[in-house]
Amino acid sequence: MIELNVDLGDRSYPIFIGESLLSKTELYAPYIAGEKVMIVTNDTVGPLYEAQVREALSGYVVDVVTLSDGEQYKNWQTLNSIFDALLGGGHSRKTTIVALGGGVVGDMAGFAAASYQRGIDFIQVPTTLLSQVDSSVGGKTGINHPMGKNMIGAFYQPKAVVIDILTLQSLPQNQVSAGLAEVIKYGLIQDAEFYQWLEGNIASLMSLDPKSLVYAIEQSCHCKAKIVEADEREGGLRAILNLGHTFGHAIETFEGYGTWLHGEAVGAGMMMAAHLSKLEGKLNNEDMVRIESLLTDANLPIVGPEGMLPNDYKRLMSVDKKVVDGTLRLVLLNAIGEAYVSSEFSSANLDEVLKT
Amino acid sequence: MIELNVDLGDRSYPIFIGESLLSKTELYAPYIAGEKVMIVTNDTVGPLYEAQVREALSGYVVDVVTLSDGEQYKNWQTLNSIFDALLGGGHSRKTTIVALGGGVVGDMAGFAAASYQRGIDFIQVPTTLLSQVDSSVGGKTGINHPMGKNMIGAFYQPKAVVIDILTLQSLPQNQVSAGLAEVIKYGLIQDAEFYQWLEGNIASLMSLDPKSLVYAIEQSCHCKAKIVEADEREGGLRAILNLGHTFGHAIETFEGYGTWLHGEAVGAGMMMAAHLSKLEGKLNNEDMVRIESLLTDANLPIVGPEGMLPNDYKRLMSVDKKVVDGTLRLVLLNAIGEAYVSSEFSSANLDEVLKT
Repeated sequence: MIELNVDLGDRSYPIFIGESLLSKTELYAPYIAGEKVMIVTNDTVGPLYEAQVREALSGYVVDVVTLSDGEQYKNWQTLNSIFDALLGGGHSRKTTIVALGGGVVGDMAGFAAASYQRGIDFIQVPTTLLSQVDSSVGGKTGINHPMGKNMIGAFYQPKAVVIDILTLQSLPQNQVSAGLAEVIKYGLIQDAEFYQWLEGNIASLMSLDPKSLVYAIEQSCHCKAKIVEADEREGGLRAILNLGHTFGHAIETFEGYGTWLHGEAVGAGMMMAAHLSKLEGKLNNEDMVRIESLLTDANLPIVGPEGMLPNDYKRLMSVDKKVVDGTLRLVLLNAIGEAYVSSEFSSANLDEVLKT
Repeated sequence: MIELNVDLGDRSYPIFIGESLLSKTELYAPYIAGEKVMIVTNDTVGPLYEAQVREALSGYVVDVVTLSDGEQYKNWQTLNSIFDALLGGGHSRKTTIVALGGGVVGDMAGFAAASYQRGIDFIQVPTTLLSQVDSSVGGKTGINHPMGKNMIGAFYQPKAVVIDILTLQSLPQNQVSAGLAEVIKYGLIQDAEFYQWLEGNIASLMSLDPKSLVYAIEQSCHCKAKIVEADEREGGLRAILNLGHTFGHAIETFEGYGTWLHGEAVGAGMMMAAHLSKLEGKLNNEDMVRIESLLTDANLPIVGPEGMLPNDYKRLMSVDKKVVDGTLRLVLLNAIGEAYVSSEFSSANLDEVLKT
């Protein structure tokens, strides 16, 4: 087992990464202040892994709320069902929420923890590759709004993150690919060496080789933790984590949440960002080809959905959280391993990218 | 004009108290980072005071969202109408919310600010006595849930609070009384001298004498600010601010939000707390009589609603946020000016109080 620490002063927390961690009491107990726990899971993950988590929590009073699985349920109604369960079960401020599932469960359980009685403790137990490398680290929680993704939420840190790679065995292959999109992102934005490692190990990652997985997850969490430590509330540096996301969110909103997987949309979005970076004269052609190649090896889309027009992108990108007073800012690449944030790009080049 | 400072490190903010402050640009401008402002108000307060605030904000792009007036609208649907307006108006993270209204507007606008794109700035402009002395100071924001008051929310501090006492001229007399309940509370919990001043000046406060009002608001905000500075997230000391509130919330929930004014319920609740304190052998009879007398002079109820039985109180008090792992904790009084928090009271004495 590997233990990483996210250093955020009095909001610091550990990340545990390894095999067969779900049922280990000692990974949860130090982070549970009261006698009661509310497990928040969904109807796909719960039947597979809830029993193992209950085994770890046998010393506590445990309630469970099971959500419908899917990004289309990441809304107020579902969030409210968590509040109903907490209030119906007489849960006080001392209750700890355990979020067992992918990014949607983690985001909603985290926002419920942030908001219930103005804030209770929670532990993240991410069960998808995407949530293990991305959404369980950094404290972003929230729900979608019909007019935009993740528009309602809070920055709220978990007390601990428990990553058991055996949960990936039950993950559909397209979700493995979607998770790898974020892994690839870490290489692209600031670690050329890790990117090169990924090029040599993408096949073993796709086949869920444990050693490769633990290494890739550790590197990803480490990369994200360092960025979040430097910029917890997304004042500046943290924005580079959004490589591909402004395009990707537009795709997800256009298609309706849940049609394209988040990681798939980010894959296509990173390709668009790379393309724009090349047109801007920053990224060279060799790097551009390497990006297209690795995304393809990971079975990720490299173009957006058919029928989505440049104006669709522009309309949907204009409500992105990275828009500051009307100016669109994008994460672009100087090279593999070197991202920058800019609003200084030619709109003709952007049009060219969006047409492709 | 008086300026108080709430000292919370990088979340510190000023409170301005005086006459004719609504239209003074210089009280808002230093706390607005972008070019756009969203005024959140209600259909009672907006028609009276929105024009003055717009005058102060003439240099900004100003949108307005007008909520229905009343505690019964302090729910998710109304909160969501703020998000709809923000997204519909293309508001970014640089937008500042200006909350113009009473406690309900302030709590909802504050929670909207805490949650929109995971947090934007807001300025409180409280227009009721209750919100001026209580809910605009301390960073508690949130909405009600059918199973409990203020159950969903965040601790989130405003950038500034602008208190214009002229807005009290339009306040119904029962709301002046409701506000005075919280003013009286500050005397009761930790300032015997201020309590004595209130006994001598309650008539001039009821008739809205400006000098008395500014002094009472200043003392109240000062008292609350000191307590919040010592305990921002309600770990301990801050709980004494809830004198009368556990009983009061039960009354409000039983009657349905909006039937009893919050301050009225707190008035009756403080009398119950005083009664229990006396039965516990803490508060002497003289102080008990003084409390009953001042509440009566302020036109506040000193008993709960007819038809509300001891079991109604106990059921509703058991979901209170002050309940820790099943144990009810109440704020009680050793004397006027000296509150304490305890779960060590006789349940027979509590029954006696609830029967009265």
